[in-house]
Amino acid sequence: MNTNDLSRIRAEAPLVHNITNYVVMNTTANALLALGASPVMAHAAEEVEAMVALSRALVINIGTLSPAWVAAMHMAAKMAASHGIPIVLDPVGCGATAYRTETAHALIETARPTLIRGNASEIRALVRSGSATKGVDSQHTPDEAGNDAQALSRSLGCVVAVSGPVDLIVADDSIARVANGHPMMTRVTGMGCTASALSGAFLAVNPSPFAAALEAMVTMGIAGEMAAEEARGPGSFQMHFLDALYRLDDNEVARRRKVLVA
Amino acid sequence: MNTNDLSRIRAEAPLVHNITNYVVMNTTANALLALGASPVMAHAAEEVEAMVALSRALVINIGTLSPAWVAAMHMAAKMAASHGIPIVLDPVGCGATAYRTETAHALIETARPTLIRGNASEIRALVRSGSATKGVDSQHTPDEAGNDAQALSRSLGCVVAVSGPVDLIVADDSIARVANGHPMMTRVTGMGCTASALSGAFLAVNPSPFAAALEAMVTMGIAGEMAAEEARGPGSFQMHFLDALYRLDDNEVARRRKVLVA
Amino acid sequence: MNTNDLSRIRAEAPLVHNITNYVVMNTTANALLALGASPVMAHAAEEVEAMVALSRALVINIGTLSPAWVAAMHMAAKMAASHGIPIVLDPVGCGATAYRTETAHALIETARPTLIRGNASEIRALVRSGSATKGVDSQHTPDEAGNDAQALSRSLGCVVAVSGPVDLIVADDSIARVANGHPMMTRVTGMGCTASALSGAFLAVNPSPFAAALEAMVTMGIAGEMAAEEARGPGSFQMHFLDALYRLDDNEVARRRKVLVA
Repeated sequence: MNTNDLSRIRAEAPLVHNITNYVVMNTTANALLALGASPVMAHAAEEVEAMVALSRALVINIGTLSPAWVAAMHMAAKMAASHGIPIVLDPVGCGATAYRTETAHALIETARPTLIRGNASEIRALVRSGSATKGVDSQHTPDEAGNDAQALSRSLGCVVAVSGPVDLIVADDSIARVANGHPMMTRVTGMGCTASALSGAFLAVNPSPFAAALEAMVTMGIAGEMAAEEARGPGSFQMHFLDALYRLDDNEVARRRKVLVA
Repeated sequence: MNTNDLSRIRAEAPLVHNITNYVVMNTTANALLALGASPVMAHAAEEVEAMVALSRALVINIGTLSPAWVAAMHMAAKMAASHGIPIVLDPVGCGATAYRTETAHALIETARPTLIRGNASEIRALVRSGSATKGVDSQHTPDEAGNDAQALSRSLGCVVAVSGPVDLIVADDSIARVANGHPMMTRVTGMGCTASALSGAFLAVNPSPFAAALEAMVTMGIAGEMAAEEARGPGSFQMHFLDALYRLDDNEVARRRKVLVA
Repeated sequence: MNTNDLSRIRAEAPLVHNITNYVVMNTTANALLALGASPVMAHAAEEVEAMVALSRALVINIGTLSPAWVAAMHMAAKMAASHGIPIVLDPVGCGATAYRTETAHALIETARPTLIRGNASEIRALVRSGSATKGVDSQHTPDEAGNDAQALSRSLGCVVAVSGPVDLIVADDSIARVANGHPMMTRVTGMGCTASALSGAFLAVNPSPFAAALEAMVTMGIAGEMAAEEARGPGSFQMHFLDALYRLDDNEVARRRKVLVA
């Protein structure tokens, strides 16, 4: 599969509304800008609906949640659903605390996300609520992760993406595996959050949520590989990663992609 | 016009109190430190007045506002006004939502800012409230932006700075145009917010608000040019930009400035 | 003294729970990841106790405090104390406003920290509440700082670390002086906050709080020296600092350490 999603993002600069955690606001905004999209962050009940209405995708990330923010997430999700705006849910730390697991379930109840993207622990916690995860880490076999993602995708009718050494993108009976990426990505905070944010940009320009999620994960992975080729550690990796997102084009993505679709 | 503002900022390290958005807190603090000023961030009603009283400039930025923060902004603005401490207002996203436009107007009502710095859309929204902007982007002709800035400056008796390919600084009947800068600055989040924060440092050491705002925009633009000369993308640009702020001196600024004063 | 703390942090990747300020969340999370630890940030009353219970250290930093956050800090501190989880308190800006000084004292009352790390002004403000500091800056003689730290350590029975050109680590009658470090560290926001966060990781693997605090300050200082050797300003310094934390090992630390224990 070859796409021109990157060219479209750059031509259209879609506005992506993020209600996300404090840790990654700066880095996800910069990743969206480097990619060519237009990020906006707004979380007040007083304006969150108005901002969603201007946007072409909504990204909800529960990484540092609190009740006022959760209320805004629900308002934004309802508005996005009623306007047909694609929604990405990143259930950061789901399973680590009951509050996170319950909040993720409640948000899914309010408005079915177009895409849920997490690591294997978080997706598992959504499927089998009750299991514990250690923070935001992931330690599951690819097979288990695939089964969890498929169960979640089928029960909700949405796309599920699982980040890991091999990323999985699941929708209905389709599974794509993305072998792009680099271990250094786990040594930088918020790379998963960045994947979710970039997914919003791809959903804004690609009418197929499965294809959009796949392209987002491929693009992340390739930018990570390009960064790792030049990095001496996680500090320089971050810099090269943003430069790579900026320099990548559809041809380079086509050349470097490592995707298996089943 | 040649100034020694940079030398004074480094000699005096003025404390600049920022009540700003979550996205840029880290990067604006670092820009102020690289320049030679002392940043402080405080937003609680319990301490915001005490912190303003220690400061030599107050920078208010509504990029991720919510009611408790807005209340603190009003408290801080009143305290700054009563102490004669210069106030910078950055009306981020003004016009995008009614909440932002109304908050900006209310803050102006509470305490006349010394300087309002925004992009053309935001300044226009302040002048002709009701027009819509797309997030934080700017798409107006320089002439329109100049007229808006002049109207705002006259009605409020404050300096207005409009960021864009050519920056405008307006006070009474004076207009300065700054041609320094680089398009890469639009691919990094919060460069406008940084311009507002640095303006606080210049207002702290230069008794002329017009000259201070002008020097801030010139310094931003030159640091952006220096960074772009070495950057391979927005990641390395950010790094080189902070290094350039740190390495710049008054002589280099004098040598590279591109200013037209009418 | 030679330790294998770094190797243990990398082998065990201890979860360090941070309730910290907005300015440094991203950079301290990245410093912990570069070092080899696992950071988590959570501040909601709804989950803060559950998250502490999963963690091996708790780092409380009052850099941008507000009442809801302070309440969560108390809940987390109580839970950590009852589970025997080491607590680091970073009293950022203590003395600058009454709210900060009172909050720091109240947190100490709720649960004795294992380690208090600050600059000389902040430690002095804790000892002699009432003195004023200028933001987060430090201007005291090493002797005064040592006396303050010793007084605080004795009255609370905890370790006190004072950052400065020469860092002091004090417990009971022991004082260690760390001459590692570089002046460029004062031109990057949150380097003190990073020292506190890294201390959490060392406390998680080293049963001696004095030795853990010492190793944290030595590691910070050496990483700062390595970064300064390659940096052209505070932008590149930040990048090289994270790379240095990632590349450092116990042998290199042993080779470069400059420690005087009295």
